[in-house]
Amino acid sequence: MTTRNGPRKAEAIFAATLELLAEHGYDKLAIEAVAARSGVNKTTLYRWWPSKDALLAAALRDSGLFAVDVPDTGGLRGDLLAVATQIHRLLTSERTAPVVTAALTAGPRRPELGDVARSFFADRMAREQPIFDRATARGELRAGVDPVLVMDLLAGAIWFRLLLRGGEAAPKFLEEVVDTVLGGAA
Amino acid sequence: MTTRNGPRKAEAIFAATLELLAEHGYDKLAIEAVAARSGVNKTTLYRWWPSKDALLAAALRDSGLFAVDVPDTGGLRGDLLAVATQIHRLLTSERTAPVVTAALTAGPRRPELGDVARSFFADRMAREQPIFDRATARGELRAGVDPVLVMDLLAGAIWFRLLLRGGEAAPKFLEEVVDTVLGGAA
Repeated sequence: MTTRNGPRKAEAIFAATLELLAEHGYDKLAIEAVAARSGVNKTTLYRWWPSKDALLAAALRDSGLFAVDVPDTGGLRGDLLAVATQIHRLLTSERTAPVVTAALTAGPRRPELGDVARSFFADRMAREQPIFDRATARGELRAGVDPVLVMDLLAGAIWFRLLLRGGEAAPKFLEEVVDTVLGGAA
Repeated sequence: MTTRNGPRKAEAIFAATLELLAEHGYDKLAIEAVAARSGVNKTTLYRWWPSKDALLAAALRDSGLFAVDVPDTGGLRGDLLAVATQIHRLLTSERTAPVVTAALTAGPRRPELGDVARSFFADRMAREQPIFDRATARGELRAGVDPVLVMDLLAGAIWFRLLLRGGEAAPKFLEEVVDTVLGGAA
């Protein structure tokens, strides 16, 4: 059996990894099962990703499933609204919500997954940084405001409303989040 | 065996419930085990709380472990900073963090726990509402700003930074969160 490791095959491997995570949870996620589902030899997987966590980190970071379409609407408000809409979709769509939930529920009890989460969110922040660079150049961001904090507020509010408070996050809510993050509550 | 159901005994029952949740997770939480640990008859527990979820909801909401000390510092900034500090402590202290983590990891995969979460956060919001009523009376809150949204931003940012991004939330971070929620990033 010969296997290719071009981007196309990597995407099949990542998809199998995230499907199995969503179906069975982190504990039962096994490289053998990923190999079987993606049709890739187990030893090939181990050559590229030495551990389950390494494979999971790569899948979460590089799978098309979570691809970020970094917006450039010409203004910070429009960009943040587009990002908020994407976060909302990731947390609610049928394809992604089960994976997010499985990753979320696996994470806090397993310190070894902390690096996976840190890697995922650091990568995401790096992709979103241009939004804030452009906003700074346009004078739309107050001096001294940390872009990571802005993303904590934006993403945190949507996560909190949907997954902890168990509420709805209608388009109007996303606009209110963005407008309050930008303009303040006071 | 006679049992009392005064507040003192209820606290022992709630403590046993949350300890068992933290130790073994939601799946293995059983009313029998709560009865054994708290020294209260099983039938007594069932008389007060007809199901495991009812008991868990009561424990999360009414246990002293998660008691909210609603601040009244004389200003919205001081009040929100006090609330942020309490949230940070709940998410990081040795006594509460394991319970929070167990509840968090149990929740999203079990729709029946949605009501528990909704009840918990609705109760918490009701207790925090006076902060916003006083702020409105003092003219510190912009007209039309939803207090629930303010709490989503405040609590969400701290949860996101600590539990998802895997970062630190030093006192300076909490101040930046409060100041950005109040003053805005733009």
